[in-house]
Amino acid sequence: MQPVMSIAELHRFLENDFPQLAGSSHAMTVTALEPGRATLQLLTGTPHLRPGGTVSGPTLFALADVAAYVAILAHIGPVALAVTTNLSINFLRKADPGLVTAQATIMKLGKRLAVLEIAIEGPDGELAAHAVATYSIPPR
Amino acid sequence: MQPVMSIAELHRFLENDFPQLAGSSHAMTVTALEPGRATLQLLTGTPHLRPGGTVSGPTLFALADVAAYVAILAHIGPVALAVTTNLSINFLRKADPGLVTAQATIMKLGKRLAVLEIAIEGPDGELAAHAVATYSIPPR
Amino acid sequence: MQPVMSIAELHRFLENDFPQLAGSSHAMTVTALEPGRATLQLLTGTPHLRPGGTVSGPTLFALADVAAYVAILAHIGPVALAVTTNLSINFLRKADPGLVTAQATIMKLGKRLAVLEIAIEGPDGELAAHAVATYSIPPR
Amino acid sequence: MQPVMSIAELHRFLENDFPQLAGSSHAMTVTALEPGRATLQLLTGTPHLRPGGTVSGPTLFALADVAAYVAILAHIGPVALAVTTNLSINFLRKADPGLVTAQATIMKLGKRLAVLEIAIEGPDGELAAHAVATYSIPPR
Repeated sequence: MQPVMSIAELHRFLENDFPQLAGSSHAMTVTALEPGRATLQLLTGTPHLRPGGTVSGPTLFALADVAAYVAILAHIGPVALAVTTNLSINFLRKADPGLVTAQATIMKLGKRLAVLEIAIEGPDGELAAHAVATYSIPPR
Repeated sequence: MQPVMSIAELHRFLENDFPQLAGSSHAMTVTALEPGRATLQLLTGTPHLRPGGTVSGPTLFALADVAAYVAILAHIGPVALAVTTNLSINFLRKADPGLVTAQATIMKLGKRLAVLEIAIEGPDGELAAHAVATYSIPPR
Repeated sequence: MQPVMSIAELHRFLENDFPQLAGSSHAMTVTALEPGRATLQLLTGTPHLRPGGTVSGPTLFALADVAAYVAILAHIGPVALAVTTNLSINFLRKADPGLVTAQATIMKLGKRLAVLEIAIEGPDGELAAHAVATYSIPPR
Repeated sequence: MQPVMSIAELHRFLENDFPQLAGSSHAMTVTALEPGRATLQLLTGTPHLRPGGTVSGPTLFALADVAAYVAILAHIGPVALAVTTNLSINFLRKADPGLVTAQATIMKLGKRLAVLEIAIEGPDGELAAHAVATYSIPPR
């Protein structure tokens, strides 16, 4: 399983596909790409926090979802657009504001379905959340 | 299982607890409260959409989470704050922008854990997403 | 959404497809069939119990899975065989031995994926477990 | 995070706690124990198969559940008994009969909740299923 897109190509695609992610000082960045895996980072700040000052659930959900989406995209190319069908997330520890890292690993990349696990670490390097997500892949 | 807070009390609590939800023209509103169940609505518009013009996953996730949180809060009162430990969401059909409705039903309200299911309908009344969420309830 | 098979046809199909379920005094029985829904019952006894004398997790898992499978089968007919891709089950209350009932409700029946929720009640009529399951449907 | 029980102690405990697992030629065996992780194996044969000759869902579910339970037990000792509250399993590839291996990794071991992921490989060493499970830990 080899990536067919570079980090630069992924960023260009995301800027067009997810313009709300780009152009923001808090944009998600693809920081690594390996066979079967993509790593994204998000610098979290005030807009991402919930009462108590920790990173909110919807922020971690969105980061997990984009990380998995990017991992699939990197391996099948920008032709077919995957659609999230299920995302199950466990919140394990509170994440303080700062650099949050999501690593999405492809467990299955079939013709119709992709299944990934996503580990999300807070700025302290501790596992803050863990997600498993399924995507439906349209016919290529 | 009877609610111990009124809709007005819930709204006051949310305004203090989730100020980012209030004061916005797109705020979530508690529209019904019954034994074991709470219904919320969110008027979705441009900020809630993803490419393609349908309501985004993080928006539906946040709505499911708040609906379940409100249902628990309504039944145990504002003393103990529940924390989401797991949320699994299935995206079933695309939701067009407009009034989106989430109905959270308590399946279990134990001393330590609450488990709820949340049905989310789009403006057309079709089931757009379904979630199951678990909350940890701190010692009262 | 209308069933295209009768309860008798379902039982005949299960006897051939799942011979391990039939011919046993503890077999699962389809007790009701409605648009979008199937109800199954299982008489649980010693082989289904775990330490403590309550119905075991694998027994409830299997019942949820078969109930959902039967609901799909009843609505698409015996041609295409659905395959479980995900099953998430919450154990809510202990189920005593006796007649356990599973009601599977179709939330989505697409061309490629079906998503169902399954409510499982113990002999006391209380909700013992709740599952959500996704099935991949082969091309028809 | 260090195990506080040996493999031999775990086997003795399982023989008493899960007598249905022991004394069988198809019993699950704890094959490795590391900080935060337990590995179990099950020799699957005819009783574990479904139509088509691959290992059944309930068998993989039970193996995931016992592997996670053993991993918790090994780290908190045999005093408190953990109870499964949620198990979500993704079936990724068919597993042929033979030696099936489950590796359970603790992601969180809190005072009240433990969350683990479990990777299950078939005899060919491919990932056949992946589960995430939550356990409630009684007050110690």
